[in-house]
Amino acid sequence: MTKSEQKNTHTLILMPSGRRGDIEEGTTILEAARHLSVEIESICGGRQTCNKCLVKIEEGQFDKHAINSSSSHVTTVTEKEQKVLIENQRPDLRMSCAAEVFGDILVTIPEESRAQKQIIRKSARELSIDIAPAIRLTYVEIEEAELGEHRGDWGRLQDALEAQWGLKNLSIDLLALRNLQARIREGKWKVTATIWNDQEVIDVKPGFQEGIYGLAVDIGSTTVASFLTDLRTGANLATEVVMNPQVSYGEDLMSRISYAMTHPDGLEKMHKAIIDTLNKLASKASREAGIDKRDITEIVLVGNTTMTHVVLGISPIELGGTPFALANRDAMDFKARELGLRLHPGANCHILPSQAGHVGADNVSVLIAEQPYKQDKTILTIDVGTNAEIVLSSKDWMYSASSPTGPAFEGGQISSGMRAAPGAIERVRIDPQTKEPRFRVIGEERWSEEWQTGPDTEAELRPKHLAAGICGSGIIEVIAELYLAEVLTADGRFNHQVVGSRLQWSEDKKRGAYVLATADQSSSGKPIVVTQDDVRNIQLAKAALYAGAKLLIMRAGVNKVDQIILAGAFGSYIDPKHAMVLGLILDCELDDVIAVGNAAGDGARLALLNREKRAEAQRIATNVRYIETAVDKDFQDEFVNAMSLPHSRDDFPHLADILPQTTDPIPPQRIRRFQRTGNK
Amino acid sequence: MTKSEQKNTHTLILMPSGRRGDIEEGTTILEAARHLSVEIESICGGRQTCNKCLVKIEEGQFDKHAINSSSSHVTTVTEKEQKVLIENQRPDLRMSCAAEVFGDILVTIPEESRAQKQIIRKSARELSIDIAPAIRLTYVEIEEAELGEHRGDWGRLQDALEAQWGLKNLSIDLLALRNLQARIREGKWKVTATIWNDQEVIDVKPGFQEGIYGLAVDIGSTTVASFLTDLRTGANLATEVVMNPQVSYGEDLMSRISYAMTHPDGLEKMHKAIIDTLNKLASKASREAGIDKRDITEIVLVGNTTMTHVVLGISPIELGGTPFALANRDAMDFKARELGLRLHPGANCHILPSQAGHVGADNVSVLIAEQPYKQDKTILTIDVGTNAEIVLSSKDWMYSASSPTGPAFEGGQISSGMRAAPGAIERVRIDPQTKEPRFRVIGEERWSEEWQTGPDTEAELRPKHLAAGICGSGIIEVIAELYLAEVLTADGRFNHQVVGSRLQWSEDKKRGAYVLATADQSSSGKPIVVTQDDVRNIQLAKAALYAGAKLLIMRAGVNKVDQIILAGAFGSYIDPKHAMVLGLILDCELDDVIAVGNAAGDGARLALLNREKRAEAQRIATNVRYIETAVDKDFQDEFVNAMSLPHSRDDFPHLADILPQTTDPIPPQRIRRFQRTGNK
Repeated sequence: MTKSEQKNTHTLILMPSGRRGDIEEGTTILEAARHLSVEIESICGGRQTCNKCLVKIEEGQFDKHAINSSSSHVTTVTEKEQKVLIENQRPDLRMSCAAEVFGDILVTIPEESRAQKQIIRKSARELSIDIAPAIRLTYVEIEEAELGEHRGDWGRLQDALEAQWGLKNLSIDLLALRNLQARIREGKWKVTATIWNDQEVIDVKPGFQEGIYGLAVDIGSTTVASFLTDLRTGANLATEVVMNPQVSYGEDLMSRISYAMTHPDGLEKMHKAIIDTLNKLASKASREAGIDKRDITEIVLVGNTTMTHVVLGISPIELGGTPFALANRDAMDFKARELGLRLHPGANCHILPSQAGHVGADNVSVLIAEQPYKQDKTILTIDVGTNAEIVLSSKDWMYSASSPTGPAFEGGQISSGMRAAPGAIERVRIDPQTKEPRFRVIGEERWSEEWQTGPDTEAELRPKHLAAGICGSGIIEVIAELYLAEVLTADGRFNHQVVGSRLQWSEDKKRGAYVLATADQSSSGKPIVVTQDDVRNIQLAKAALYAGAKLLIMRAGVNKVDQIILAGAFGSYIDPKHAMVLGLILDCELDDVIAVGNAAGDGARLALLNREKRAEAQRIATNVRYIETAVDKDFQDEFVNAMSLPHSRDDFPHLADILPQTTDPIPPQRIRRFQRTGNK
Repeated sequence: MTKSEQKNTHTLILMPSGRRGDIEEGTTILEAARHLSVEIESICGGRQTCNKCLVKIEEGQFDKHAINSSSSHVTTVTEKEQKVLIENQRPDLRMSCAAEVFGDILVTIPEESRAQKQIIRKSARELSIDIAPAIRLTYVEIEEAELGEHRGDWGRLQDALEAQWGLKNLSIDLLALRNLQARIREGKWKVTATIWNDQEVIDVKPGFQEGIYGLAVDIGSTTVASFLTDLRTGANLATEVVMNPQVSYGEDLMSRISYAMTHPDGLEKMHKAIIDTLNKLASKASREAGIDKRDITEIVLVGNTTMTHVVLGISPIELGGTPFALANRDAMDFKARELGLRLHPGANCHILPSQAGHVGADNVSVLIAEQPYKQDKTILTIDVGTNAEIVLSSKDWMYSASSPTGPAFEGGQISSGMRAAPGAIERVRIDPQTKEPRFRVIGEERWSEEWQTGPDTEAELRPKHLAAGICGSGIIEVIAELYLAEVLTADGRFNHQVVGSRLQWSEDKKRGAYVLATADQSSSGKPIVVTQDDVRNIQLAKAALYAGAKLLIMRAGVNKVDQIILAGAFGSYIDPKHAMVLGLILDCELDDVIAVGNAAGDGARLALLNREKRAEAQRIATNVRYIETAVDKDFQDEFVNAMSLPHSRDDFPHLADILPQTTDPIPPQRIRRFQRTGNK
C-alpha cells in the first residue's frame, strides 16, 4: 500500500454523550456520528437540504480566514452552507453532513439536532421516550424517467428509497399512487415520501417537506381525550377532552351493550357517534395547533373493550355475558379512512391490544406508560372507571383483574351524585367533635365555611358556584370523614349515639342520613344529603375494588405492595388517605400512593411516538395473567369481608394512628341482604 | 419395538395417474393420496362434510356384508357415509377421507374429485390450467370460547386455521372482523373462511359453505369484456361484452389522454364511467349465472396502459408524451371497494403488470395465455387495436414493440369505415377479369350477388341488412383484392389502365376511387366507395405494423418466423392471406397464422384461476425487451419501405403464386408527402 492510499484517522468526541472514536479522514461528522451510534437528526439523508443536522465544533474549529491552513480540523464552510447557517441565524454552527473531519475535534450536538429526542411528558411523574414513530418522512432524489427505461415512476421511487434509505419491499397506497406522477414532476424528481412502518408509502410530496403529526386518543366510556402530537419532536400540540356522545345511549358499558342488543341500528348509531367525535377532535386540535388535519398521518386508539369494539364497528354484545369473548384481542392496523376518519387520506389507525373481555387497550396503555413490570417492586396499578382494572406486577410476573365497582365512584348510584363539573363537592372535612362539615366545590376556591350566601350578600362575595351535588372524590371523602368522625360505624350504619343537627333519621329510626350542604349552600335550594343507600353503594364498590386487589395478592403469593399507582381522573383527585380509610386500596405507605393522571392517554402517545412500544404492548397483553373475578370463590369471600370500614384494622397498619378505636364487623348475613337490595 | 407397535404397509395405486406407493395401515385414502402428491378435492379438510373427495375403489373393495372380515382392504362404510353416498346418488363410490387402507388397493379418482382440474378454455386453441386461485374457502372447526381463555374469536380462528390448514400469519379484513362473532356462533363454532392469497381472511360464513367466483375483465379502448368464473371448477359462467363508455370522451387513446389534460374533471369522469361499467358487468353476469355478486371475491383487470391508469384513477397524461412514463409498471393488489366496485365487500382487485408506456397489462395477458416463450419456435404475436402490440419470442428471449397503427384497421380514418356491427362489409372478393366486387355484411349470410333489392322485391327475399359501411376486416380485404385484381398498383394508386364502371376518377384524373357497394345495396342509399385516402391510410397502418415486426426481427437477429399469433377481435376476422397480401404481417406458412380471439381476456381468466400465472406475468413484464419504435431510425426506414403493396416480393415467398407479376415501388419522396398529408 502506498502512502497516498493510507488514510489518516482522527479522534472525534461527541458531546453531550461523550462518545468518542477514531474516524477516517474525510468522513463527514454526520456519518462519523452514525459510526459511533450517536444519532444526529437528518431528514434529507446528508444532502445539505434539510438543515436539521447542525452541530457546534467546540475544538479544532476551522479558522475561516485560513482556507487550506494546516490548522483546520474540518473542511471549510462552503458558500451554500454559509448561506444556510445565516438563514438559520446560527453562524456558530456547522452542517454535520457538510463538514468533513481532517483532525481531532470535539463536537457538541445541540438539543434540537439530536435525532432520538427525549420528551418530558408529564409534570407529576416524568416519562421520556425515544422518538421512533411508525411514520417517517424521507427526502429522496429519483432518477428521471427516460425513453427506453420502463420501471414506471413507482419503480423508480422504490429503487431510490432502497438505494438512499435502505427501504425494501415497499408497497404504495393507491391514493398516493394516484398523485405520484404529478408530485414527482412538481418536485423536479426530488420528493418527500411519507412511509408507514417501513412498509408502505402513504404520500409523496414535491421537494423537501416537513411536518408530520399523529393523534393519540383515549376513548373512555364517559369522556374522550385526544392528544395531537408532533411526530418529529414529540411535542404535544393540543389536548382536547370531550364527552363521549355514546352517553346518550347508556351511561355505563352494560347499558350500551344492551342498547346494541335491543336496537337493530344500535351499534351503527354508537359507532357513528364516536367516529363523528373523533373527526371533531381532530379538526379542533388541528385548528388549535395551526396545522392541516390532513397532515395527521397516524391515529392510535385505546379504550376499554366495549369502546374499542364499537369504534371499529364491531358489536359489543359478546362482552355482555359469559365467557365475555373478545372479537379480537390483538393490536390491529388498518386505514383510518376505512372507519370514516378524515385525517391524511392514507393515515394508519393503530389500536392497542386488549388483555381479556373486561380489560382493554386502555389498561395495556396504562401499563406501557407506567412500565410497572420494569421496576424492582411489587406494584399495584389501579385504573378506576365504571369497571376498575387492577394489575399487580413485579419484574417477573403480572396479574390483572377487572372489578365490577359500578358507577358509584363516578357519582353514579349516589343520591346526590354528579360528574366532576362546576359545583360538584370534591373535598370534605368533618369536625370529629361537632360533626359539622366543611366542603369545597369545583370552580370555587373557598371552602364552604367562608361562603356568604344570605339574601343580602353582595354578588361578588357569593361563591362562584353553589353546591350542585357530590362527585367521585367528594363521596369518598365524605364517607371516610363520617367514619373517622364516628358518625358512621365500621359496618356502615349511621351511629345512633351521635347528636347533631346534621344527622337525620327515618321515622322508624332505622335509616340515618347526613346533611352535607344546607339548602342555602345548594344551587337547587334543597339540602345535599348522604343517605344510608349512598353509604351502602360506596361500600359495595370499594369492597369490589379491594377484593380484586386482594385476589391478585393471593394469586401472586405476596403479602404486601410496595407502591400503588392510581391511573385515571378519579385517581388524580381522590386523597390517598381517605381512600385507604375507606379500605378502597390496599395498605401502603401513603407517600407510595401515586396518582399519574390519564396514563391510558400517555400510553397511547408513547405508542404513537415509538413503534417498539407497540411490540411491548403486544407482549404484555399476552403475558399478563388475567384472573376472572366473576366466577372466583375467593373473590366472593374477599368481597364480603371487605364491606366494613375498613374491614379489618390489621390490614391497615399505616392507618393505626388515625382510625377510630372501635370496630364492629358486619355480620355476613346482613351484607348479603344489602348486596341483594342495595345495588339497584 | 413390540409387534403391536409395528404398522403394516399396503400398496396403493391411484388412477388415472397410475401413481403408487406403500401406505401405512389405517391411513385414509385422502391422506395417502396427499403423500403420493395426488390431490383429491377436499374443502372440509377430511371432516366428512364437503362430500367432494369421493373415489372409486376398483380392487380390494370391501365386502359390505362382511364387517370385520379379514378380506376387506378398506374400512367399512359407516352409516353417515352411506347416507352421504346415497344422497349424492353415488353408492358405488367411497369418501376418501373416511375409507382407511387395510390392504392393497387400486383407487380411481373420478374427474370431479380431482382437485387440480384441467379446464378447456377455448375451442379455437385449447388452453388448460391448474386451478389454484388466490381465493380459497376453508372449512374450519374453532375451539369454543371459554371463561378464562382470552385469545378472542379472531385468535381462536387463527389457531384453528394454522392447526387444520397450516395457514400462518393471517390478517383479517376489518369488514370480516365485524361479522366474525355472529357468524361463528351461527355456525356453532364451525365456519367456512374465505382466504385471499394465504394472507388475509376476507370473510367468515357459518357452517360449511361453497361457491366462490371471480371476474376477469379486459378493458379495451372500445369494448370491455368480462368473464364470470367459478373459482372451484374453473367454469366460465357468463361472458359479457359492452362498449367502453369512455368512447364518448374520445375514440382513441390519444384523444382520451387529451380529454384528461384539458378538462379538470376529465380523469374523474372517465374513471367513474369505467367503474360504473364494471359494476354493471358484474351485476349482469351474476344475474345471468344465477349467483349473488357479493360472492365475487376477486376481480382481475387487464387493459392497455391508458385504461389501467384510468380505471385506477391515475391520470394518463404522462403516457401522452415522451418518455411515456408509467405511474406503475408492476402488478398491484388492493381492495376492490377502494375503487367503488360493488362485489364481495372484501374482494381483491388484481391488475396484471405492464411492460412499458405503450404495452400494457392486456399484452402481458395475451402472453401468459399463449405462452409463446415456452414453445420451441420463433413466434410473432400481434394484438391489433388502435395501437398494435407486437411480441417476437423464442424460448430464450422476448422482444416487444408498440406500433402506432392508428384506427384505420378498426374502420377509423376510412371514409366509409365503421365498427364491426350489423351491416358492416366484412368480406370482399373482386373478379380479376371484370373488376366487379361481391361482398358480405355482418348479419346477412348471403353474398351481395344473391341479394334482391329492387323496388318490387318481397320483404323476405331482401337481405336482413343492407351495407352500412366497411369494418376492419372488410377494408383489409377490399384493398388486398383491389391489388390482386390490379385495380391498385403496387404503390397504392388506382390503375389508370383499368376500365370498368366501378372505378371513378377526380376531374383532374389524379385521384381514383372504387365503388364497392352501389346505391341500392347501401342502407343510406348512397354508394359505398373506397377512396385514394382510404388506401393511403391503410398503407400507413400496415406499414407501421410491418415495420414494428421487422424491427423486432432485426433486433432479435432472426430472419423468419415460424408462427404468427393474431390476438384480439381484429385477428379473428381478417383473412391471413389478405393480411399477407397487404404486407400487414410477415411472411409465413398461411397455416401457421393462428387467430386466438380475445387472448387478453383468456390471460385474465388464467390469472384469476392460478396464482402462479401472476408470478409468471410479473417475470414476463420485466424480462421482455421493449423496443421503442417512436425514436428508432431503423423503424422509420422500415416504415417507409413497407408502404407499397407488398413492399417487396422477395419478402413474401409464400405469396409467389398469387401476387400480380408487376411491381412498382413508391419513390420515397411521395411516401413522405402522403405521410404528412394522408394521416389526418
